[in-house]
Parts: sequence; C-alpha cells; structure tokens
Amino acid sequence: MARARAEGARQKISVLRIGHRPGRDPRLSTHVALAARALGAERLFLNPPDPSLERRVGEISKRWGGGFEVVGAPEWKAVLRSFPQAVAHLTMYGEPLDELEPKLRGADPLLLVVGGAKVPSEIYRLSTWNLAVGHQPHSEVAALSIVLDRLLGTPGPGGWPGARQVIVPQRRGKKVIAPVAEALP
Amino acid sequence: MARARAEGARQKISVLRIGHRPGRDPRLSTHVALAARALGAERLFLNPPDPSLERRVGEISKRWGGGFEVVGAPEWKAVLRSFPQAVAHLTMYGEPLDELEPKLRGADPLLLVVGGAKVPSEIYRLSTWNLAVGHQPHSEVAALSIVLDRLLGTPGPGGWPGARQVIVPQRRGKKVIAPVAEALP
Repeated sequence: MARARAEGARQKISVLRIGHRPGRDPRLSTHVALAARALGAERLFLNPPDPSLERRVGEISKRWGGGFEVVGAPEWKAVLRSFPQAVAHLTMYGEPLDELEPKLRGADPLLLVVGGAKVPSEIYRLSTWNLAVGHQPHSEVAALSIVLDRLLGTPGPGGWPGARQVIVPQRRGKKVIAPVAEALP
Repeated sequence: MARARAEGARQKISVLRIGHRPGRDPRLSTHVALAARALGAERLFLNPPDPSLERRVGEISKRWGGGFEVVGAPEWKAVLRSFPQAVAHLTMYGEPLDELEPKLRGADPLLLVVGGAKVPSEIYRLSTWNLAVGHQPHSEVAALSIVLDRLLGTPGPGGWPGARQVIVPQRRGKKVIAPVAEALP
C-alpha cells in the first residue's frame, strides 16, 4: 500500500549522527547520510565533522538534486538544544516505534539521533524520546530508514530540483536521463 | 500508526546478499544480516560465503533468540532458482515500491536480493521484479529494511524463542533481563 504523506506542509526532519570516526572506513556514515537524503531528511549533522564525507555527499547532491547537506557538528549537545522537545534518539533500549509514532508526527521540526556501537550515556537523558525500532541489535542505517519511511514515505520517481540526472523506472535494466525537455525521447 | 501484520500465517522472507567481500570490512554485510534478522527475515544467503560472518551472526542469534541463520551461498543463481516467480531485486533503477508492494505481499516465500556497488547485470533479467526503494543512490541496508518493515512490520517488545536476554523497553536508560520467570523482579 502506498504510504500516505501528510498533506500540505511536509514535516521537516534533520538527522544527527554521533560517534562518526573520520579516517576509518566511512561507509557506514556514508550510508547514514545517503539514506537520510534519499528518504527526505533536510540535513545530516555529523559529529565529529568530516570534511571529506561532507564533500563526497555534496557531490552526490549536486548530481542528483535536492537541498540536502551534511553539516559538521563539533558539539552534539548544541545540535540537540536547537530542537527543543523534538529529539528522538534511536536505540533498541527505548520505547517501541509503533507507540511513539503518533508523537513523532507532531514534532516539526524533528531531530533523529543515531549513534554507532557506543553513545554517550547522557543522550538517553537529553533526548525527548528514546525510540526503539525493534528491540534486537541491528543497524542504525536500518532504524533511521524505517522511521523516515513511516513519517515521510519513500519518494516516488521524478527528478529532484536542480538534478543533472534522473532515473526513469524500468522493469528490466537501467535508464537515466538528463532532466531537461530536450533530452527526452 | 502501528503497521498491520498479516493475520494467520506470516509471510516467509529470505534475503540474498551478493557481492560480499570476505576479508574486507564486514560491517556493511553485518548490518544487512542483522537488519534482516531483526526485521523478521528467516535467513540470509551470503554470496560468496563468509564463515566468520556466519559465526558472528550465529552468536547473536544464540544470545537474542529466534531461528535466523546466515547460509553461505557459493552460487547466487542457484538461490534464485529456489524462489521461482518470487525474487525481488532491490535497485534504484527498478519499479517504485509503492506500486510493487501489493505484488510482493502475494509472494510467499519471497526472496529479496541486495547487492553492493556493483551487481552482475544478469540479475536484472533473472529476477521477477526489479524493485526501487526510492530512485536516489542510498543504501542496501536502508532499502532492505524498509521493504521488510512494510511487509512484516517491525517486531514489538518481548523475548524471541530461545533468547538468553531480552530488552524491557524504557523511557530512559537500558534494561535487559534473562527471559525466565525467576529473573523477573
């Protein structure tokens, strides 16, 4: 079933990734950033900052469009303070998604916080909600994506503003076009 | 809103991960495996096989319960053949999830296929469906998790069969118990 999107104004969601490790394998933080972007978040705050990752994701945004950005965040608590009463920390120890989902819908703008294996214990106290996407060990990429899909839905086909390339969905194979009228067949 | 689960028999879903690279950083394949497990898949076929990853995920299953297993798959095509007319290959080039979702619900058992950056081009032809979770570059962990959440819902609290430890959801902090009556307060 297609997910209903809120009519009218779209909920504004930012993501904060804490415990990123610059210089180590950046793939997981990259997946967090790209999933946040593809699923409709406005920005990723990255703590600690990583200019190389910011640049690489910025290049993808330039090519594929939209206004998503990665913002280096030297102080994660400062980010939390700018989303008063609207911080959901994703942790398998928290309250079930099915129960918190209606509250999350009412928080606009909303900050979703994802950590790695270890997070500072203060985060449990400083967050508005501790939100469990299931209560089994799994993946911050998975948990974040499910929350975004439930709140915003997964975007359908069509170019994003400013895109240089756009996918045309196919039953088989790949089709990518430049999103200008004269490039269409 | 809580996701409705199918009443009666639960849809049986397996996942095939192709293009795993044993010996390189295993974190992404580990996230694929743990997300598949936490979100209700029955097993992960891993191509090529990686006994070390199979063992580590097996240890998590022993601790947290349930029947999930990682199965080494030397030949990915053989796995596809055992799910005739029920293979969904996740790719941003495919047909939109919102459109395919009703068809996926009717496929039981269902195989979801996720690749890494590169997949063999034959997979587009050999799959029943090429399924796009959005049409932007993002993450196989994200795409897989959204499909599983939509088809099966995200499991709520409660111990899984055979679990040695169970999380008790908390508004703040962490609570883990042994799932036997005498361990309860």
